[in-house]
Amino acid sequence: MLGRVRTAVAQLVGGLGPAPGAQPPRDSPAPPPAAPGLSACRGPPVGGGFSRPAFLQLTSEELQRADDHAGRAVQSPRESRRRLPWSTGYAEVINAGKSQHNEDQACCEVVVVDRRCSPRPGSSQGFLKDLCFHYWGLFDGHAGSGAAVMASKLLHLHICDQLRDLVDILQDSSPPPLCLPGIALDLPAERNRAPLAQADVELPSDALPRFHLEKAVSHESLVIGAIENAFKRMDEQIEREQMTRLVAGGCCALAVVYLLGKVYVANAGDSRAIIIRNGEIIPMSREFTPETERQRLQFLGFLRPELLGNEFTHLEFPRRIQHKELGKKMLYRDQNMHGWAYKRIEEDDLKFPLIYGEGKKARVMATIGVTRGLGDHDLKVYNSNIHIKPFLSCVPEVRVYDLTQYEHCPDDVLVLGTDGLWDVTNDREVADVVTEVLMGYEPNDPCRYTMAAYELVVRSRGVLKERGWRLANDKLGSGDDISVFVIPLGGPGNYT
Amino acid sequence: MLGRVRTAVAQLVGGLGPAPGAQPPRDSPAPPPAAPGLSACRGPPVGGGFSRPAFLQLTSEELQRADDHAGRAVQSPRESRRRLPWSTGYAEVINAGKSQHNEDQACCEVVVVDRRCSPRPGSSQGFLKDLCFHYWGLFDGHAGSGAAVMASKLLHLHICDQLRDLVDILQDSSPPPLCLPGIALDLPAERNRAPLAQADVELPSDALPRFHLEKAVSHESLVIGAIENAFKRMDEQIEREQMTRLVAGGCCALAVVYLLGKVYVANAGDSRAIIIRNGEIIPMSREFTPETERQRLQFLGFLRPELLGNEFTHLEFPRRIQHKELGKKMLYRDQNMHGWAYKRIEEDDLKFPLIYGEGKKARVMATIGVTRGLGDHDLKVYNSNIHIKPFLSCVPEVRVYDLTQYEHCPDDVLVLGTDGLWDVTNDREVADVVTEVLMGYEPNDPCRYTMAAYELVVRSRGVLKERGWRLANDKLGSGDDISVFVIPLGGPGNYT
Repeated sequence: MLGRVRTAVAQLVGGLGPAPGAQPPRDSPAPPPAAPGLSACRGPPVGGGFSRPAFLQLTSEELQRADDHAGRAVQSPRESRRRLPWSTGYAEVINAGKSQHNEDQACCEVVVVDRRCSPRPGSSQGFLKDLCFHYWGLFDGHAGSGAAVMASKLLHLHICDQLRDLVDILQDSSPPPLCLPGIALDLPAERNRAPLAQADVELPSDALPRFHLEKAVSHESLVIGAIENAFKRMDEQIEREQMTRLVAGGCCALAVVYLLGKVYVANAGDSRAIIIRNGEIIPMSREFTPETERQRLQFLGFLRPELLGNEFTHLEFPRRIQHKELGKKMLYRDQNMHGWAYKRIEEDDLKFPLIYGEGKKARVMATIGVTRGLGDHDLKVYNSNIHIKPFLSCVPEVRVYDLTQYEHCPDDVLVLGTDGLWDVTNDREVADVVTEVLMGYEPNDPCRYTMAAYELVVRSRGVLKERGWRLANDKLGSGDDISVFVIPLGGPGNYT
Repeated sequence: MLGRVRTAVAQLVGGLGPAPGAQPPRDSPAPPPAAPGLSACRGPPVGGGFSRPAFLQLTSEELQRADDHAGRAVQSPRESRRRLPWSTGYAEVINAGKSQHNEDQACCEVVVVDRRCSPRPGSSQGFLKDLCFHYWGLFDGHAGSGAAVMASKLLHLHICDQLRDLVDILQDSSPPPLCLPGIALDLPAERNRAPLAQADVELPSDALPRFHLEKAVSHESLVIGAIENAFKRMDEQIEREQMTRLVAGGCCALAVVYLLGKVYVANAGDSRAIIIRNGEIIPMSREFTPETERQRLQFLGFLRPELLGNEFTHLEFPRRIQHKELGKKMLYRDQNMHGWAYKRIEEDDLKFPLIYGEGKKARVMATIGVTRGLGDHDLKVYNSNIHIKPFLSCVPEVRVYDLTQYEHCPDDVLVLGTDGLWDVTNDREVADVVTEVLMGYEPNDPCRYTMAAYELVVRSRGVLKERGWRLANDKLGSGDDISVFVIPLGGPGNYT
């Protein structure tokens, strides 16, 4: 389906050397700020070659086994190795031959956010505490692993960078200042920026002439804004890489940030997150597909018909129209409609519909089945010069869950999965499997969450029979890459 | 706020003679189809002068009393006069001086839909039954009554017109045909269109070559599409009127259609509908305001900056920026963001924000507080040539409630109200008042629903004290026009 996109995955990922935006490790001296974006983030270089998540700590032999489409061995962190924060469970399996490698990627980190300016000498260190966040990310690549690998290694650093201006604001109980001095933007931070405690806070509202009212902005919405902008910066960085190197394809991104008592779930694509709390399911994301985003895409096609390249129509029809049907009346929907109506078929309606197909087969411009994510800057319609990226969005929807509002038990979890999981296992089934597995272990057994993730992947992959991978009910198992996090929300010592 | 819009309400409404699109009453011979749209609808002419809903059957003395801002007498249909279908309850009151007349309008009708083609001689009359729908509409006008009066007299006829092609399709249990012969469009229907029963149905799907799959389209979505297109046609008709006559202002529109067992609630604006069922509240609409539609409007301003007339910025800021703040960092949101982030203030950011203000004070281009509705074609930003209509949508959101899925008791009702009701009385309070009033009457007493509507209006208006209209809790009552329908969903003989 992604015909003209370069699909030589191995070479592409091999060509992904250390990215220019990536920075030396934390203990090196910080470089001077270069460009807005990742300038102050410090992280590992983007690794070359085929890779699986670093936290799996696979040996080269294990890596080879993880890459075997025939065996489809499920991979999980080993008990004997580094444990993930919060005893997070994780498991993954490669696809059944859909692509050369597993195009899913994952990341789990605890990230310390350095404030962009140093504390004022003599100021209260109690107020100016460090800020850190927990982070989990799932990246489901398509048409190559490049974008997914880059995003898995860098997105949390972009989030870190976006939060650097907010370290003190977020820890101050007063409402965020609407306006900050901005002179530090072009100059080294340490020399030119007074600390927030004194100089950054606005004058009291009655000291300045005001037009009308002011809008109250919450701390929470600053974190949401930071995550949204981090996704944009990540996408821009992939674009720069795609211009100069062979970074292939795009990826859906599902990222979770735990910060100051709240869980932020940011989703761009068709991965999914649910919370299972006391057996109840709380959806924490929605999928962005040609069907769910039909009206946004049609609206764009309507306003910017040049993006449709004279090949597509922004109208939706329930099937292709044949030339001989000109003059008849056909059901259609435009960008404003939820319902359907009949319209007389004109010449222009013979073009291919911008959105076409149903369910997993729905496509934008007959090419791509997800409408949000990172990368895809070079994606074009097969055999044409029509770019698809203008119709794709890199902006996630961020949902917030306040962990402090409810006393969680050890069986309460947040489950993240790529579509390989959800295509064959629905929310209720996932919740039932998780509950069943967790019941088999002591509440304080840290490996129980990995066992739950493992079981979810095994049951969604199925067992290899004569007629392919089959589930327990003999239906087809998922032939896609499957990656799952099971993150405990309660239990002693988890929030460290 | 609607500064340059002509506000001489009396003259404007007086200037609203019989509209060209309005048709003679049902018993006159049908005119030949003239133009697409309302060509085949038959209804009363659009009345001139100040008017209240026809079903109130007010004498001229009563009309004068209804128009009195000082007394604010609540109006309801009298027991002795024509009863509304389903024993629907209704009440209204004029504003406290906000505009010269009551700019709310209402309509309640049973509409018979004639099919566009006549039945084939000898075909089964059992299959080709007549179709009729029940209809309730609330129209909350602004900057004049013209649009609200027009819409209250004509919208149901536009819905009727849109349904005329669907009379047989909706009553046939098989899925709607995707394609219909279309030759009848330009020619008199009776002579050129074979009846659906024989010629309109598509060939079986295996008889035609098909591209990929076909999308299944439900009967329900055809009704939704018909209602959506009826709103568009109504808006176009108001536009034509506004070009040639003084039809002032615009209006929010909330319309309910009961057809073949389902209730369709179509809302464009800030009126609201809720179902109260067994004490439980089921929201049947959402409000369309600068705040709820911020991203749609910003997206349009971003893609079509020329619509902003060099006066507005598509970015949102929590307050106006002063020139001396150039170079500082200010909180902002763009069309993609739900959260807020800081940006450096540039020259362009000093323009007025496209969306500005909070809650009831939020405005598009500092002018209008609702973003969907009918009319407003001539609405411009004060003292400028910038049109606001491109940012307004006439398309309603349609929600469907299947009456057959639940056994309703006589206390289950659908409440429709203009914002005058909801501004001071929330969903729960409305439900409590309705339940309380209904309990005071026998379940089969038809006047109980009018008493509930009356009580809702009285309690939201309040009582005139020294410091204005006051509620029972001494808070300010609604100074706006208030109009309320209370529609029973259960009880013997209601669905006739």
